[in-house]
Amino acid sequence: MRNFYSTALRYENTKLYILDQTLLPFQEHWVCVENHHHMIHLIQKLAVRGAPLIGVAAAFSLAQFAQANSDENFIRKAAGELRSARPTAVNLMWAIDRILSLPHLNAETILQSAFDIAEEDARMCEAMASHALDLIQDGDGILTVCNSGGLATAGLGTALGAILNAHKQGRKIHVYACETRPLLQGARLTAWELSQAGVSYTLICDSVAATLMKQGKITKCFVGADRIAANGDFANKIGTYALALAAKFHSIPFYAVAPRSTVDEHCDSGDCIPIEERGEEEVHGVRGSFGAVSWAAPGAKVFNPAFDVTPFSLVSGIILDSGIWS
Amino acid sequence: MRNFYSTALRYENTKLYILDQTLLPFQEHWVCVENHHHMIHLIQKLAVRGAPLIGVAAAFSLAQFAQANSDENFIRKAAGELRSARPTAVNLMWAIDRILSLPHLNAETILQSAFDIAEEDARMCEAMASHALDLIQDGDGILTVCNSGGLATAGLGTALGAILNAHKQGRKIHVYACETRPLLQGARLTAWELSQAGVSYTLICDSVAATLMKQGKITKCFVGADRIAANGDFANKIGTYALALAAKFHSIPFYAVAPRSTVDEHCDSGDCIPIEERGEEEVHGVRGSFGAVSWAAPGAKVFNPAFDVTPFSLVSGIILDSGIWS
Repeated sequence: MRNFYSTALRYENTKLYILDQTLLPFQEHWVCVENHHHMIHLIQKLAVRGAPLIGVAAAFSLAQFAQANSDENFIRKAAGELRSARPTAVNLMWAIDRILSLPHLNAETILQSAFDIAEEDARMCEAMASHALDLIQDGDGILTVCNSGGLATAGLGTALGAILNAHKQGRKIHVYACETRPLLQGARLTAWELSQAGVSYTLICDSVAATLMKQGKITKCFVGADRIAANGDFANKIGTYALALAAKFHSIPFYAVAPRSTVDEHCDSGDCIPIEERGEEEVHGVRGSFGAVSWAAPGAKVFNPAFDVTPFSLVSGIILDSGIWS
Repeated sequence: MRNFYSTALRYENTKLYILDQTLLPFQEHWVCVENHHHMIHLIQKLAVRGAPLIGVAAAFSLAQFAQANSDENFIRKAAGELRSARPTAVNLMWAIDRILSLPHLNAETILQSAFDIAEEDARMCEAMASHALDLIQDGDGILTVCNSGGLATAGLGTALGAILNAHKQGRKIHVYACETRPLLQGARLTAWELSQAGVSYTLICDSVAATLMKQGKITKCFVGADRIAANGDFANKIGTYALALAAKFHSIPFYAVAPRSTVDEHCDSGDCIPIEERGEEEVHGVRGSFGAVSWAAPGAKVFNPAFDVTPFSLVSGIILDSGIWS
């Protein structure tokens, strides 16, 4: 019996479990996925999140569907439904398309493919972490933003994966986690992962990072990347650009960490990366399983981009599974 | 009958009223101040805030006390109690000390002094706004952080005062208000003041400012200052330093606006400005009259400085009531 285990996904004895990330950091609740409609619901409500992890979760879900429905037309229909669960997660489409291009589409081949996708993702995380390890020394104060760890991938993670691995390999480091307004993935998820792993860390408001750099407390920055243009400009969580500017001013090495598949060769530079703008309510207040409050002046107009673009000229290097691009 | 009116303080027919800022932006509730104990309570719960406004409020409160208690010893005792309502607001101590140094300490002289302090503060705001007006043109996109308007002073305000005045004088501007984590003075108070004044504005998470600079949307930055060293380095709300770095990178003019009394000649440089660190709960979540929630990983250690220091080399000028220091 082949099983797969990661921080937020388990495939065990033909059953698929998802750690409900909407309940973190207060509850660690594993949901047994009933069928592909259930999985779509879990993806849409962000119970499972992180582009690589969504792809892996959808692949396992389709394998389960095929176990109960051997008709290839039904499988293709379910695949299409899973594929459109979220419109912007490239890895979701990539994973489903990879499965649909299999010469034989059945329960066995799809499950095999799901394991391959998951294990490849975990291996890519290991490779990135291994390249990053050479850049991390005892005594480093490492800044990160958003969540790019085991909760976002089927492995260790990308930027946070590199940090967690350095700790595992015995590097004496301290991590500064930006809370990451507006959705607070740093405060909720990265802080939870760091605390689970026993890594020494400090949670900060996003605006505090520059001061810690001036004080010499931050010596390296590692961030993820959602899309990398052919010239090395990359999109990542909003706030990354401001951190890169501050790091440049203080001559602090700044690295993006992402799998090779994040590079979009069709995109010449950061200018052509489309940036998702999200709703005003995210900035008017906060909402989550922890509760919901709104504090902003009623009717306040908001500009709420989910990502920003950092030019390649500001980074020391981009750490890919295939090596460091600098 | 001499009266005084400002955005958040009214002295009218011998009665003192305070706009309860803890209820903004959802309720505009004026509290009639009963006695100096009541005023101390209002200061401590931040119903009245902003260093200049606290000083003015305490001065009027002491005048009211003296109307009911003519014994100078009692007046000095009440003055001491008001003076220690908050330990860090320099203007509070300055206002009380100015009153205590009067040759004759009675209801009439104290009230006269309270009016003087309030009207001087309002005049200094006008002077700063007038210097700033020359720097603001039609089409400007102006960034500000925290709240430095009529809610923080007895006049128009400092940085936000300059912005409000430019709008009043007919300049066609658009304002970008940083929400200002952790206490959200930008989202709650600055957005409220801008909306009251009919100024076109956009509320943003603090981490978004750098992207707006890159996009050319922000053309000027105006921020307040809590203390200015003799060499021009200044302390202001946390996040100011990161904004100044981003503005420098994009060659965008960046001004601090503060009354001359903010300059601390005993302080050679920013290195000797003490920075208040506040509690972890402010970063673990939010709390206010709008409600309270906590989202951070339980036990997360936090670094929560209330201010940061921006070196003079990053600013285009410091706008004082006495002129522009550049």
